[in-house]
Amino acid sequence: MLTYHLEDRGTLPLYEYLYQCIRQDILNGHLKKDEKLPSKRSFAKHLDISVVTIETAYAQLQIEGYIYSKEKSGFFVSDIREMSLPVGTTISSLSAFTTGQTVSAPNGKHNHFCNTAGAYLASGSAGTLSDAPTQHYFADFQTNRIADDSFPFSVWSRLSREVLSDKEPELLKAQPSNGSARLREAISEYLYRFRGMQVVPEQIFIGAGTEYLYSLLVQLIGRDLVYAVEDPGHRKVAEILTSNGVHCEHIPLDAYGLSCKALAESTASVVHISPAHHFPTGIIMPIRRRQELLDWAYKQENRYIIEDDYDSEFRFQGRPIQPLQSIDTNDRVIYINTFSKSLTPSIRISYMVLPWTLVKRFHKSLSFYSCTVSGFEQYTLAAFISRGYYEQHINRMRNAYKTKRNLVIQALKNSPLAPVARIHEENSGLHFLLELQTDFTDDELIASAARCGIKITCLSKYYQTDDTRRQHTFILNYSGVENDRIPEAIERLAGIMK
Amino acid sequence: MLTYHLEDRGTLPLYEYLYQCIRQDILNGHLKKDEKLPSKRSFAKHLDISVVTIETAYAQLQIEGYIYSKEKSGFFVSDIREMSLPVGTTISSLSAFTTGQTVSAPNGKHNHFCNTAGAYLASGSAGTLSDAPTQHYFADFQTNRIADDSFPFSVWSRLSREVLSDKEPELLKAQPSNGSARLREAISEYLYRFRGMQVVPEQIFIGAGTEYLYSLLVQLIGRDLVYAVEDPGHRKVAEILTSNGVHCEHIPLDAYGLSCKALAESTASVVHISPAHHFPTGIIMPIRRRQELLDWAYKQENRYIIEDDYDSEFRFQGRPIQPLQSIDTNDRVIYINTFSKSLTPSIRISYMVLPWTLVKRFHKSLSFYSCTVSGFEQYTLAAFISRGYYEQHINRMRNAYKTKRNLVIQALKNSPLAPVARIHEENSGLHFLLELQTDFTDDELIASAARCGIKITCLSKYYQTDDTRRQHTFILNYSGVENDRIPEAIERLAGIMK
Repeated sequence: MLTYHLEDRGTLPLYEYLYQCIRQDILNGHLKKDEKLPSKRSFAKHLDISVVTIETAYAQLQIEGYIYSKEKSGFFVSDIREMSLPVGTTISSLSAFTTGQTVSAPNGKHNHFCNTAGAYLASGSAGTLSDAPTQHYFADFQTNRIADDSFPFSVWSRLSREVLSDKEPELLKAQPSNGSARLREAISEYLYRFRGMQVVPEQIFIGAGTEYLYSLLVQLIGRDLVYAVEDPGHRKVAEILTSNGVHCEHIPLDAYGLSCKALAESTASVVHISPAHHFPTGIIMPIRRRQELLDWAYKQENRYIIEDDYDSEFRFQGRPIQPLQSIDTNDRVIYINTFSKSLTPSIRISYMVLPWTLVKRFHKSLSFYSCTVSGFEQYTLAAFISRGYYEQHINRMRNAYKTKRNLVIQALKNSPLAPVARIHEENSGLHFLLELQTDFTDDELIASAARCGIKITCLSKYYQTDDTRRQHTFILNYSGVENDRIPEAIERLAGIMK
Repeated sequence: MLTYHLEDRGTLPLYEYLYQCIRQDILNGHLKKDEKLPSKRSFAKHLDISVVTIETAYAQLQIEGYIYSKEKSGFFVSDIREMSLPVGTTISSLSAFTTGQTVSAPNGKHNHFCNTAGAYLASGSAGTLSDAPTQHYFADFQTNRIADDSFPFSVWSRLSREVLSDKEPELLKAQPSNGSARLREAISEYLYRFRGMQVVPEQIFIGAGTEYLYSLLVQLIGRDLVYAVEDPGHRKVAEILTSNGVHCEHIPLDAYGLSCKALAESTASVVHISPAHHFPTGIIMPIRRRQELLDWAYKQENRYIIEDDYDSEFRFQGRPIQPLQSIDTNDRVIYINTFSKSLTPSIRISYMVLPWTLVKRFHKSLSFYSCTVSGFEQYTLAAFISRGYYEQHINRMRNAYKTKRNLVIQALKNSPLAPVARIHEENSGLHFLLELQTDFTDDELIASAARCGIKITCLSKYYQTDDTRRQHTFILNYSGVENDRIPEAIERLAGIMK
């Protein structure tokens, strides 16, 4: 049976170390594809650790696509280099309906809430509901907002005051082009501890938001190359790239994320993906697909993968998904993340981790740029991270979002929607999908939700190409809806089926 | 004799009102070209105000090019619509040597300071002096820095704390694409009071630094147009435009700033200028040239003037030069300014004032962008401006810079450089020029200044085209040199003539 020296784990949690050992053995071929892993119980006995530890490690390996489960047979090693899927794979994905939770209605009660809902809308907005500003809605499931009271004002204010009273001479000078050394060091340390990424501060580049970093990347990688984006995906990415003079190709997704086949058939040299938790489908890209993407990039010079890790902090089960950046052995992955989503959109601080070839190119061709982020906020954020407040904040927010998400799901289960609805969620991120059995069109669904005071949008709105468009699926961005409004919000939403 | 109703001036200072009245009469043709203005003494008697008030108003009109003086004859109205210059014009400019102060040496003392200056340099840097970091220099006249202790830390810190403790709900949302309404209102009010610009908040767009705004402008105006930049000029402007995929043409300057003739002969549709105080020559563009530039822009659709007003706050005499934006009657001037230069480079907040056609275009095609400046700092700056702290700060800095500038000029007059040096300065901005009679090349001058512990650069380094390059002229960016170092710094600089 597999044997690992658990005493070598240092300060790592047991499950984490075990996960790493098994993953390593899969990656280096010691564990072959379709090989059966020890049963949880016997493995636990063998290593003299608890069954829960084994379960947690296996769950993480499964969610990342390293192993798969067969009902009543146990866990097996995935084929991480081949396209064809082993039979019985349970990789969670949009198309793999086996992971969709069927919402069951515990009672037959139907609330006729929506009939009176118009009364809750601000007067004057009735005629133009779909354009009504957010405050006219009872609940907004479209905008990914952060609860107003979640930002750690007092800590931030104190650290900010400290920075301003220290008056370090370096602070008043223009910050280095790539950001203040102190913030880059804090991020490097954070990435190591919480994302398992080994990145030195020299690879990190700070900028005023991800959108700005994209425009820098276009200048760095090249404006004449073709950029591939996910379809469906964040509309803004393609908008920004196009506005920067770049030609974009929209690449369809399959059950495992961006289709490598379609990518290879395109003329793209650069691809933008969000493998940790795709927006809007929620797909977590399995390791095999990640390897395929890397293989695609390695095939030609000047091919790059932009990995947008935008809400990886908010996984509600197991450890965060390992980023593509840390399995790239050939300098082709650009990792990008932001504090605007995890702290507050009011703070415009994002960063990217560049491969060394691009680090050098930046210093050669773009170092004339000033850093776009205020030195004051760079120093404040550096202190916020390095003194552990960021970790505390993320943990608190993760719990708050988990609670909120469970409230929404529970409300859905109790609602009249239950018999015709299916939830697709991945224990991750700030949104999930709600698929309905209905003959209404998506536009009708959205308009009728608006009439019930609910701002919400559909998955189909995020596709560029018509033929692959998935219908009848709401995207529930739940983070901006107050907990005490959730039951009524879902009741109102149920009104759309009338 | 000219008569104005001074009691109609409202809260304006007398000289300011008088300046406005005369300017208006010149612009509307009541005062014709080459018409003689009343003598200061008789005009003062006539209006029953002091001679000093008349002098101040005339000086302002002269510096802006509305009137000219003839020795022993008095002041005359300039021809503000024609190219040819009236005889005897004293518009200050680089080529108009009549305004250059000849530095006279009050004594014959020559300090042989530089012979031992090497000892002041940090060890190890001797071999690579021209690349040595700033801290190895005794004084840095190359980098435009702000004195470390000039930033109003305590006020800023207090306002920032207020913003964070108020926790206004709007603050935690993503700020509008064009910036927070509160900051745009504060800037609009400031521009009206201190720049005489009538601009509504809807025309103002906030961004994380001027460099970022340029990239937005390229997306807004068009990447396929040709952009003209000043030669000599800020190298960065052309670098940023080029990096954004734009073709730049370098347009030479004459005594009045950018040559309209050369501009008209170019293929450019957009021109970037700094008319209030050109860097590096210091030229203040006279009203006639401004009118010519506007005429050029009005001749074709889609022609725009980008007016960079970067250090207009720091005029040491009279009122600030009226911006081109406020005499544009046809929606072609984009006004751009920054707080990074007037407050501290650590703060990355700039803004632009767009003509209405571009305001509309922005909302149509670029409103998907998030604002790049932190909401916290936008709110803090808004309070800083609207409560009068910004005005206080500018006044204090203006006085500090004036003192510093006078110290440098006095030190030059007392130095061994005096017999061979000529100062060109315009009572404005954070730099002036020092022209030397010498056979050394500019590279030799810079290297030999570095050996004396002085970081400095030459005007010739800012030209793109060789044939117009002015030699033997240092640019003295004095703002970053501590007052108590100025005498020794100038003594050291004199060492270059050995």
